[in-house]
Amino acid sequence: MWPTKVISKIRYLQSPHCKKYSVIASVLEKANVGDSTEVKGWVKNLRVQKEFIFADVSDGSCAQRLQILIPKSLKTDCLSFGSSVHITGKLSKSPRGQLELVAENVTVLGACVVLDGYPFNPRTTHPPEYIRQYTHLRSRTNYISSILRVRNTVTKHIHDFYTTHKYLNVNTPILTSNDCEGAGEVFKIQPDSEETVKAMMQEGRDKDTVYFGSKTYLTVSGQLHLEAICRGMGNVYTLGPTFRAENNRSRLHLSEFYMLEAELAFCDDLQLLQENIEDLLKYVYVETRNTNEADLCLIDKENGNAPSWLNKSFITLSYEEAKAILEKKKIASTEEGLNKEQELALVEYCGGVPVFIVKWPKELKSFYMKECQDDNGKVDALDLLAPITGEIVGGSLREDSYGKLKDKLPSDKLNWYLELRKFGNIPTGGYGLGLERLLQTMCRVANIKDTLPFPRWPHNCSM
Amino acid sequence: MWPTKVISKIRYLQSPHCKKYSVIASVLEKANVGDSTEVKGWVKNLRVQKEFIFADVSDGSCAQRLQILIPKSLKTDCLSFGSSVHITGKLSKSPRGQLELVAENVTVLGACVVLDGYPFNPRTTHPPEYIRQYTHLRSRTNYISSILRVRNTVTKHIHDFYTTHKYLNVNTPILTSNDCEGAGEVFKIQPDSEETVKAMMQEGRDKDTVYFGSKTYLTVSGQLHLEAICRGMGNVYTLGPTFRAENNRSRLHLSEFYMLEAELAFCDDLQLLQENIEDLLKYVYVETRNTNEADLCLIDKENGNAPSWLNKSFITLSYEEAKAILEKKKIASTEEGLNKEQELALVEYCGGVPVFIVKWPKELKSFYMKECQDDNGKVDALDLLAPITGEIVGGSLREDSYGKLKDKLPSDKLNWYLELRKFGNIPTGGYGLGLERLLQTMCRVANIKDTLPFPRWPHNCSM
Repeated sequence: MWPTKVISKIRYLQSPHCKKYSVIASVLEKANVGDSTEVKGWVKNLRVQKEFIFADVSDGSCAQRLQILIPKSLKTDCLSFGSSVHITGKLSKSPRGQLELVAENVTVLGACVVLDGYPFNPRTTHPPEYIRQYTHLRSRTNYISSILRVRNTVTKHIHDFYTTHKYLNVNTPILTSNDCEGAGEVFKIQPDSEETVKAMMQEGRDKDTVYFGSKTYLTVSGQLHLEAICRGMGNVYTLGPTFRAENNRSRLHLSEFYMLEAELAFCDDLQLLQENIEDLLKYVYVETRNTNEADLCLIDKENGNAPSWLNKSFITLSYEEAKAILEKKKIASTEEGLNKEQELALVEYCGGVPVFIVKWPKELKSFYMKECQDDNGKVDALDLLAPITGEIVGGSLREDSYGKLKDKLPSDKLNWYLELRKFGNIPTGGYGLGLERLLQTMCRVANIKDTLPFPRWPHNCSM
Repeated sequence: MWPTKVISKIRYLQSPHCKKYSVIASVLEKANVGDSTEVKGWVKNLRVQKEFIFADVSDGSCAQRLQILIPKSLKTDCLSFGSSVHITGKLSKSPRGQLELVAENVTVLGACVVLDGYPFNPRTTHPPEYIRQYTHLRSRTNYISSILRVRNTVTKHIHDFYTTHKYLNVNTPILTSNDCEGAGEVFKIQPDSEETVKAMMQEGRDKDTVYFGSKTYLTVSGQLHLEAICRGMGNVYTLGPTFRAENNRSRLHLSEFYMLEAELAFCDDLQLLQENIEDLLKYVYVETRNTNEADLCLIDKENGNAPSWLNKSFITLSYEEAKAILEKKKIASTEEGLNKEQELALVEYCGGVPVFIVKWPKELKSFYMKECQDDNGKVDALDLLAPITGEIVGGSLREDSYGKLKDKLPSDKLNWYLELRKFGNIPTGGYGLGLERLLQTMCRVANIKDTLPFPRWPHNCSM
């Protein structure tokens, strides 16, 4: 057996690297007037007055800045907007009751000469389109740094939600030999090196198949792989990058984006999926609100108010009901499915409360979806429509009959997927949620390109 | 302001989907003798005796199985090894004092006929090479399911470690126009659809550049991107997939693997990096041990003992010292650097304690590494060598002089990286750790292909 005595002796979480200075979030949370404090960060604002220079310093740990009072007697060469600084001093209280640091020593670590080409200016709110051009520097702006902190927190709360419910986090593969739903809009991969290609070349192969022995794509969904693990280990989820090779530059599309996918074991009722999704979204929203209120308000002042849907139940409409409503509102179309305008009209019709559209015509949905028990022309699928983005979740019960699935299977390459139904099969259902669209809805971010640190879209993959 | 009253009213974490039945981990943790209980899972073993059938059922939630006593009077059609079942009954205690479930009702959800081609047999330990052929079914085996649970927990503890230290989790991009260290062994991507290629084609472009406007690769490291965010927001980390297009099928290599990378803001001392890494590894090991002891012992009985390094400090050797030791042990080579045999010999020399190799000759390491203050022929880089795998971490202080970095920059495409040093620069250092190699070292898994659910290596990307 393992000696528990050993464990208690182990030194960890005590690394001195975090004791050399304090992050501003901790100072504001825990420190008291009179404490000697050391912070490092970037100057966001400078005001020179009679006896003091006032500098607002941020280190990225929170939306709040720490105000530094710098006596003019101190040496402050190169101190300017954008420069990085190391400051030691004593905490005191400002006339307005806020914690501030009276500097005893100021060291400029890195100068920042705006005239040398720094794209941001003090006391200026740059529009998102402008900031977006400087991907490598934009986390220094308030807008983007607040969004990245919220993204960090939302990710954490998503993991916490599933951990609490004992779901297994599964890393589904990025590289795959099947293109999932046959959507067509996929990226393919091959080795860049001509030498590698040459060394691995075999009769009957080409550059596309030489490395893995078959054509290989970037994943568009981890669902089918999740289903495999779900049939051995129960409830599972994954949160990772997925890809679309579409030529679409809208404010809602990216070529690389994060998808949260969950697969519920022993799930034979769409209602269970809906409850799971509603719980998840409310949990993540409330928890993020609790930890990042200042960030949310900085992103959009409107975020100061609770969204209208938070203390209401989500709404459910059948696809037919939804189409009838659109007919009445005179925005019906002859196309099947729902377009973006129609999605947003339905959310508006529901008073801004997210709405599940269920009971979809079979021919509009994927081969793996289960037919409704009371109508085999329909499938037990759902789309969740939300304010700002329209669709943010898609899900369904999965076809669990070996015979029916065999008839619908689009490709022999998916025989492994069919075989999951042959041995100890169970009913499952699951869904996929676009992380960036969730962030758009939650934080009121108009353009999806601002919800992740390094957005990729057609003609844009510059670093 | 936001009405806090609203928050308390919100229903979440109460979804009935998790109340319909209990996962076995919860039953073993919380339930008592006499409780009515409902479980769903897979039959791992069956023993027919006089009055009862004994079935061991697992649902993937933990290494332990629940023993079910099924009175022979109950209907049990299709009940067999591998079948999925739904069992209701009352908990009781076995003669040996273990919790067991006396069944009142047994429903077989999915039959499993071994003769129909199910690759696994009852009461058989299949070798890993055999199991690996059935990627889609292998999470039903003890060995792989235990490893996947440990992987899940290790991932969680890694995130907890950085969250506790207030590091920001940053999703660095998978698609990138730079190949990071110029290693050459990268995958390139392009749209699969000929139509998309045709529609986006412009003068002077080819298939490789048509979509993004420049050749685009799968990432080999998120470091340079992390450095950008670190220079705006402080300490950062990322844990995600990375890729190598090498033709290497060793037990230590994958084409797609997970890398943990961290970048420490204001870090100007390699010692701080070393302490951070040692803390991380000890924290993750001990916490995983606390949550997954049964899994670890199931993976390898030797895991029942604490590793020799756990209550010792990691060792540090300079590259020169390491080379001298290898010379003495008569396994020196004329090549520069350290090969796998030499790495493992050094770990053995250190009594199985992980060892940092520091002060590397400049020409063996990457352009972005910082020269040692006392020897400009050397760089402040580290490799951490561990048992079983050899190198599991590589890291360095980063060159922070604009002038020196400019001279060493391998490509104009990295001008954005150079520019980070121009505006409010700070000293940073960081490291990358291979998640799968960590799992190999921690759990004593000989082949890296068993440490993740869907391994990809040359000629193997079958689903």
